[in-house]
Amino acid sequence: MDRYPLVLAIDAINCDKRIILLSEELSQVLSGFKVGLPTLISCGTAFLKDLRDAVGDALMIADLKLADIGDVMVRTTSLVKDYVDAVIAHAFVGRRGGLDVLSEELSRWDVKLILVASMSHPGSQEFYDAITDRVIGLVRDLNAWGVVAPATRPDVIRVIRGRLRDVKIFSPGVGVQGARPGEALCAGADYEIVGRAILEASDPLAAAKSVGEEALGAMKRCQRA
Amino acid sequence: MDRYPLVLAIDAINCDKRIILLSEELSQVLSGFKVGLPTLISCGTAFLKDLRDAVGDALMIADLKLADIGDVMVRTTSLVKDYVDAVIAHAFVGRRGGLDVLSEELSRWDVKLILVASMSHPGSQEFYDAITDRVIGLVRDLNAWGVVAPATRPDVIRVIRGRLRDVKIFSPGVGVQGARPGEALCAGADYEIVGRAILEASDPLAAAKSVGEEALGAMKRCQRA
Repeated sequence: MDRYPLVLAIDAINCDKRIILLSEELSQVLSGFKVGLPTLISCGTAFLKDLRDAVGDALMIADLKLADIGDVMVRTTSLVKDYVDAVIAHAFVGRRGGLDVLSEELSRWDVKLILVASMSHPGSQEFYDAITDRVIGLVRDLNAWGVVAPATRPDVIRVIRGRLRDVKIFSPGVGVQGARPGEALCAGADYEIVGRAILEASDPLAAAKSVGEEALGAMKRCQRA
Repeated sequence: MDRYPLVLAIDAINCDKRIILLSEELSQVLSGFKVGLPTLISCGTAFLKDLRDAVGDALMIADLKLADIGDVMVRTTSLVKDYVDAVIAHAFVGRRGGLDVLSEELSRWDVKLILVASMSHPGSQEFYDAITDRVIGLVRDLNAWGVVAPATRPDVIRVIRGRLRDVKIFSPGVGVQGARPGEALCAGADYEIVGRAILEASDPLAAAKSVGEEALGAMKRCQRA
């Protein structure tokens, strides 16, 4: 079967084997896996390697939320580059001596760049959402492969999709944070990022299928409308 | 003797014992130690514990460059809280559901908050430096203990010092990145952050003393002027 357009967010700080085994099972139905900073610091790169081996050809993303000078972002990414398809960095860092340095090194390593364009918490509106226009320019200039834009604010997704046809849009905020499955996809996202709604369910595989079906159902309705 | 107003930036990804032993020696003359994300991911929290034990009462900072939703920033910080006096987070994350959540938890843990107000690479001028005014408001609102502002742009330091009398200002960019020792202190910083100029010297302790003396000399001259 086709995989659902869902990416699992892993931010666990306990490093037992359960999450690896579970991810192996979930990789039958999920498109990708996004490993956050808490897990990377707590469990190290060995965890990432095991996860890579477990999930086969599913998309692997290191959610480092990189936000440093170019040199330091490159050094951080060098630790994970062999295990992931993409890394996430903050657009806010800016280009010169920052994202341009990272982007160049990522090309050499054949690792994709995903830029945060907006975040899922209300505070994103205080600074980030005021610069959406210029973030779109930055995504173009750097030829970034993907962007992160929140399922909790579909209008931002629509603006980005309207101006960047080919970029992959990843949308966090589905489930516990409040967005309904499918809302971000309807607004133009390619993948919805789900964490606790799957991982904290008593049957995570069933939960993943249920969120996936709900998302596909919502997409059918909005495409018809 | 008094320690120099210098903080050592540690971003090494090799985790051998040498850096711990060296830091123990350097803690005689340096005020603090700032451990970056590359080191934290590569060496884990065990490294941080060893460093904490080695440097005695010197200031320990986890330079996580936190830039996520509140929950994830709290979870990341929970991993390092027992070994550090302060953590660094990005102001551009915004307050609601972000820095307010982090700040509240840090108070409970008795860990200080340092906010990035501006960065040392040219790209900082593209987005960050346009919001300095509002970052200053955020530092006040959250009652943050410190801010990071680059030695490479002393004007930004002056603006922040002029409006925030009691906040501790930490300034990276001294040495390899181009700022002269003492420049940031003269502009109002409390500590200059130095990395490679000390760690890559053939005699790091001598290099630390030399940078420290140069910084103090510059301060004397600018206070006289």
